Amino acid sequence: MEAILLANKQVLLKRYVEGNPSEDDFELKMSYISSHIPQGSNAVFLKNIYLACDPALRYRLSAHDHSDNIALLKPFNLGSVIQGFGVAKVIKSTIPDFEEESYVWGVIGWEEYSMIENPKVLYTIKYTDVPLSYYAGILGMVGLTAYFGINNISSVKEGEVVYVSSAAGGTGLLAGQFAKMMNCYVVGSTSTDEKVDILKNKLGFDDAFNYKKEDLGEALKRVCPNGIDVYFENVGGAMLDEVILHMKTHGRITVCGMISQYGLKEKDGIHNLFHLISKRIRMEGFVDVNYWNFYPQYLEWAIPLIRDNKIVYLQDIAKGLESAPAAFSGIFHGKNIGKAVVNIVADK
Amino acid sequence: MEAILLANKQVLLKRYVEGNPSEDDFELKMSYISSHIPQGSNAVFLKNIYLACDPALRYRLSAHDHSDNIALLKPFNLGSVIQGFGVAKVIKSTIPDFEEESYVWGVIGWEEYSMIENPKVLYTIKYTDVPLSYYAGILGMVGLTAYFGINNISSVKEGEVVYVSSAAGGTGLLAGQFAKMMNCYVVGSTSTDEKVDILKNKLGFDDAFNYKKEDLGEALKRVCPNGIDVYFENVGGAMLDEVILHMKTHGRITVCGMISQYGLKEKDGIHNLFHLISKRIRMEGFVDVNYWNFYPQYLEWAIPLIRDNKIVYLQDIAKGLESAPAAFSGIFHGKNIGKAVVNIVADK
Repeated sequence: MEAILLANKQVLLKRYVEGNPSEDDFELKMSYISSHIPQGSNAVFLKNIYLACDPALRYRLSAHDHSDNIALLKPFNLGSVIQGFGVAKVIKSTIPDFEEESYVWGVIGWEEYSMIENPKVLYTIKYTDVPLSYYAGILGMVGLTAYFGINNISSVKEGEVVYVSSAAGGTGLLAGQFAKMMNCYVVGSTSTDEKVDILKNKLGFDDAFNYKKEDLGEALKRVCPNGIDVYFENVGGAMLDEVILHMKTHGRITVCGMISQYGLKEKDGIHNLFHLISKRIRMEGFVDVNYWNFYPQYLEWAIPLIRDNKIVYLQDIAKGLESAPAAFSGIFHGKNIGKAVVNIVADK
Repeated sequence: MEAILLANKQVLLKRYVEGNPSEDDFELKMSYISSHIPQGSNAVFLKNIYLACDPALRYRLSAHDHSDNIALLKPFNLGSVIQGFGVAKVIKSTIPDFEEESYVWGVIGWEEYSMIENPKVLYTIKYTDVPLSYYAGILGMVGLTAYFGINNISSVKEGEVVYVSSAAGGTGLLAGQFAKMMNCYVVGSTSTDEKVDILKNKLGFDDAFNYKKEDLGEALKRVCPNGIDVYFENVGGAMLDEVILHMKTHGRITVCGMISQYGLKEKDGIHNLFHLISKRIRMEGFVDVNYWNFYPQYLEWAIPLIRDNKIVYLQDIAKGLESAPAAFSGIFHGKNIGKAVVNIVADK
């Protein structure tokens, strides 16, 4: 393919987000991109196929004090193209690791085509007999996060009681199933009765409840009458505060996300940390940069399980790049069932 | 010694404590105790010498929901004798492990004599060439707590920055020195300039500040300009909330106590837990029941250090059983310099 100028639809950050994101925070722009890779430059030119709507992206949509030096958590500049995990096809490449016509997953732009110089977070897709969209979720950062969170951070043991909040989201539904594979008793909470039903009857959760319809304390007492060994935390705020009261001695709180808190200027106060002492609870936060090196091991573990239908994976696929702002904003209102993904173009 | 009835001064819990304890929450009572151990009963009759004023005892002075099943954290009954760590002499014993005339440390009563049947937390003192009072602190639960907290829970590594709050208290001054022995950069906070001076010039802390005289954020920025690797937490509340902002990536918060929170019905809200994710912080609570099995190892490590004056240990010894309520209440106002201990009777 020769170097040509291509029309390139893009999603830009229009303004820094306050509270939960809305479509108006983003802007759709038509621009042009050249597929020409200048001589001497290490770059790939990608045709983007899937974009992952990852809650953690919210972190980069606000101007915040960026003291933690993680490039992936740095606020976007206003007017710049959103960057996030996704799946793409390599159109041109001057990097031997990335062959033309191959598929890759990693950090790409929310646009039709991306030119990425010296890519840092980009991996060639090894197995293409499974849906490519899976690499924007279960076979990408999301799956690895659930796996690492359950297996490493949580130190889950057989027979333990594992509670997952936001359990019908991309990470939650996998964390719950991974814990089930370790013969745990797994319960989840979610925001609609439909999703409660899916958790119990489709995803194999032992129990589940709709946190919007029940007093949280009563619900947790009902579904975990003897307490919780591991809390896979996706929510934060009042949820976290209540869960601490239901933790067992030597319980672990694995802090994967706090979706209720991203949009708050003053975060909710947590009052029950005192119990960390008497219950000897370990609480630990983690983000994906922790554990890239586990990915090959995770992939080889997950692929046969997917091929053998041992994992139920749900995706909520929105069509078209222009649907990205709404799909992303939707996850903050529990609109997605399963992993929210945007499909830009036909995938093969 | 024949069985006789002895006058026995006791300290009872008069009312459940609200807020910080005061002398009025306790009652001094004169009663009588028989030194006779009934046949067939496994018991020791003790003459009590030292009582440890341990902040954690506060936990047992309020009527709280006792769901965690740790006997040592159960609320005392009103009118009952306070039970806590201390040092005693064995006067009579029907238990082979405890020889008459030997010294023991463990959980005893706040009274002149205690009859303890089937003692659960009582240890014969092996080395008596060091002050006996040390077994109510550095050579007892307090020392073991500091040791286990720094070495096991915190995973402290050479060269790390360790911040200790309530650093001139019994546990804090040891935690700081134990971290110094691992070549850490150790800073502490305390409540008076006199104690700041002691931390810096007597206990070998690299830096220290008076949290009552300075803005906490400014002080932490000054003493830990590049952030904190390990926070040895004794305070809770606003202190904890601010420290989170100063933690480095992969920092650890070792939750030993929260002295500012014991007396609060509604504990202070902690707003900065969100940073646990991006900074990948591990926060872990612990209490002494975790690690009794480490005691022999700790003792053998600590004894030569004490003999060789490699540890500076400070005690704040109040004289007379009747001084116990004031000495204990005093630690909640930072009145003690070093470990607060009550000396009931001459020790040898």
